[in-house]
Amino acid sequence: MDQPVSPLAPTTVIEPAPVPGVRLATRACGVRYQGRTDVLLALFDPGTTVAGVLTQSVTRSAPVEWCARGLADGRARALVVNAGNANTFTGLRGTSSVENIATAAAATAGCAPGEVFVSSTGTIGEFLPDARITLPLPEMAAEARADGWVAAARAIMTTDTYPKTATAETHIGGVPVRLSGIAKGSGMIAPDMATMLAYVATDAALPADVLRALLGPAADASFNSITVDGDTSTSDTLLLFATGQAGHAPVTGPDDPALAAFRTALNGLLLDLAHQVVRDGEGASRFVELRVTGAESDRAARRIGLAIGNSPLVKTAIAGADANWGRIVMAVGKAGERADRDRLAIRIGGVPVCADGLAVPGYDEAPVAAHMKGRDILIEVDVGIGQGSATVWTCDLTHGYIDINADYRS
Amino acid sequence: MDQPVSPLAPTTVIEPAPVPGVRLATRACGVRYQGRTDVLLALFDPGTTVAGVLTQSVTRSAPVEWCARGLADGRARALVVNAGNANTFTGLRGTSSVENIATAAAATAGCAPGEVFVSSTGTIGEFLPDARITLPLPEMAAEARADGWVAAARAIMTTDTYPKTATAETHIGGVPVRLSGIAKGSGMIAPDMATMLAYVATDAALPADVLRALLGPAADASFNSITVDGDTSTSDTLLLFATGQAGHAPVTGPDDPALAAFRTALNGLLLDLAHQVVRDGEGASRFVELRVTGAESDRAARRIGLAIGNSPLVKTAIAGADANWGRIVMAVGKAGERADRDRLAIRIGGVPVCADGLAVPGYDEAPVAAHMKGRDILIEVDVGIGQGSATVWTCDLTHGYIDINADYRS
Repeated sequence: MDQPVSPLAPTTVIEPAPVPGVRLATRACGVRYQGRTDVLLALFDPGTTVAGVLTQSVTRSAPVEWCARGLADGRARALVVNAGNANTFTGLRGTSSVENIATAAAATAGCAPGEVFVSSTGTIGEFLPDARITLPLPEMAAEARADGWVAAARAIMTTDTYPKTATAETHIGGVPVRLSGIAKGSGMIAPDMATMLAYVATDAALPADVLRALLGPAADASFNSITVDGDTSTSDTLLLFATGQAGHAPVTGPDDPALAAFRTALNGLLLDLAHQVVRDGEGASRFVELRVTGAESDRAARRIGLAIGNSPLVKTAIAGADANWGRIVMAVGKAGERADRDRLAIRIGGVPVCADGLAVPGYDEAPVAAHMKGRDILIEVDVGIGQGSATVWTCDLTHGYIDINADYRS
Repeated sequence: MDQPVSPLAPTTVIEPAPVPGVRLATRACGVRYQGRTDVLLALFDPGTTVAGVLTQSVTRSAPVEWCARGLADGRARALVVNAGNANTFTGLRGTSSVENIATAAAATAGCAPGEVFVSSTGTIGEFLPDARITLPLPEMAAEARADGWVAAARAIMTTDTYPKTATAETHIGGVPVRLSGIAKGSGMIAPDMATMLAYVATDAALPADVLRALLGPAADASFNSITVDGDTSTSDTLLLFATGQAGHAPVTGPDDPALAAFRTALNGLLLDLAHQVVRDGEGASRFVELRVTGAESDRAARRIGLAIGNSPLVKTAIAGADANWGRIVMAVGKAGERADRDRLAIRIGGVPVCADGLAVPGYDEAPVAAHMKGRDILIEVDVGIGQGSATVWTCDLTHGYIDINADYRS
């Protein structure tokens, strides 16, 4: 838990701007950790809508099941997140704990329990001491204020080595709109989506169905395109709240041209947060961008990218600054998608390494080896079949990952 | 390359008994390695049949493509294997190299090139100096003799830390029949089948279609049920040769009752070799047997077992002797197969750890923790859905894996 800050961390932590209609509070409740904040309460003004993307795990946690029901209604007034205990694999008692938290938060916020969203992250299989969370909620609500996003990001950290925040100002129909968000996650990170929690709020006025239509593709191109270890958490939750206080004209639907800038800002903000998660990958020493082109479809390209990004042999080669493109060929081969071995082309750091199924004639490894020694690695792979493309981000696999996971009880 | 012998290695290396109709020769040809044998030539008497299982990789090597054609005919007279260079991703020149080797071996053995099987294992993407293999073939053929299986196993090693051999005596219709075999592989090991080469010979008289029918299920329950790192090689090849010299009565087909003992012996021998591959898993310190029951089908059970066996978080927990069953729950959840979270049950070292979606009441971790410190770990998972079951074998993920793969150019 006292890991040094990742060498890939952003040099500064951004303090996101307040979002009208959102108030935040954090507290050291001693759920598991001592001497640090571990519970976040976010309160949303009446009229707030919500959309979300949840883990596809079949052993998903009680809080995730609770959120799934709330998302069907699409209305939100409060969010409660604790770190240190995932309330996963805790049976009926786990479900009761979620209900206790939602009921208590609802009483505090003056809303229905179904308008309260609950997340828990940390150790699996231990009962959640929910009274440690519910009892302080009224005091936390009284203290809640519009700023404090970095504090919120800190309160939900587990093996994270730095808080992850992002903020953006955009507009809808010429009216300024704010987006601010936080994320956590550094291991058990893979699509669908891995112990990854992310919460984004905006003051845009968007019905839940519009939020859903915007969030799905944005999540696919960000949180569902990153991987640290290929492991999928039982708890991943991405929620997007819209308080509706920006004062812009109503939108007609998800395809309203007035949403173009907002869509771009949302995509960028989620990608920013997702990259921060990869940059905090357990033990990571290099950040890797994998661009796959020439696949049968965009979906096939993403699967190929993830096969490369999840390959232990590719990831250890990158850790060793080894431009071992043979392992990339291997990973393409196992992805389960079409690829033409004899048209396959790979570039590393922009330098052609192989093409047409062969090492590039006169290939000079020196500039590639120099690139591999850097912090940011770019690998481009064209599989020679079609027009599908995707970009995936990952990190290397180092001794640090073993150090962290051979003794952390998560 | 000078790794110490795996702590999980068998205490003795078995010298398999000669198989009538098979002669072996090895030689230090300097393909890549110096100071060690690196080429194996096996000669089979006329009338030998063959069946095989090859990698499913879409970037499979030129030798694998060559073997696929030969398997269609099902006749074999020679096998040539080199270590140090995989002749993969080498374009038309790679194909020429295979043809050169097959032609030279055919001339030596007095057979058609299509009756020669060729494998190469080692670095990907470098041209194979095939003359270093073809020129010595006549001398090797002259030296070939019936014994020397351990020497054969040594000649095909790459990152292996010990030679892998197995032998069995069985009978068909009361007539004694011999099976002897070798394997190599320690990284890039996953179903379908990973840099894993295995060659088994028997003096049974079995048509190629009978061999195929026997080999498929035996491979599924052995080499396709092991994983070290989830990576799939471009070169995996499993070949079963039958020289027909045992003198038993002809069999009527794969379901002939006279084959019962042979089938059992073949299954056992392949499983033995497959376990030896896992026990040589790069950096492995513990051998792990994962028994999955209660799945929708046997196939689903195997997928769940492989999801657990490939999970970096499970494997690092095992490395740390941590009975972290929460990570097992996580891996079951991500397997993409049905499981009932609230009926899931896990036993470690035979001790119930959780049941009905909860930690077992009064769970005492002490005996489980003691088991986790051993060399052989048993994990049983019942997913509470149906009658499907499977057993999968893997090893832990340690610093040794990083050490080996962050600088070996494979």
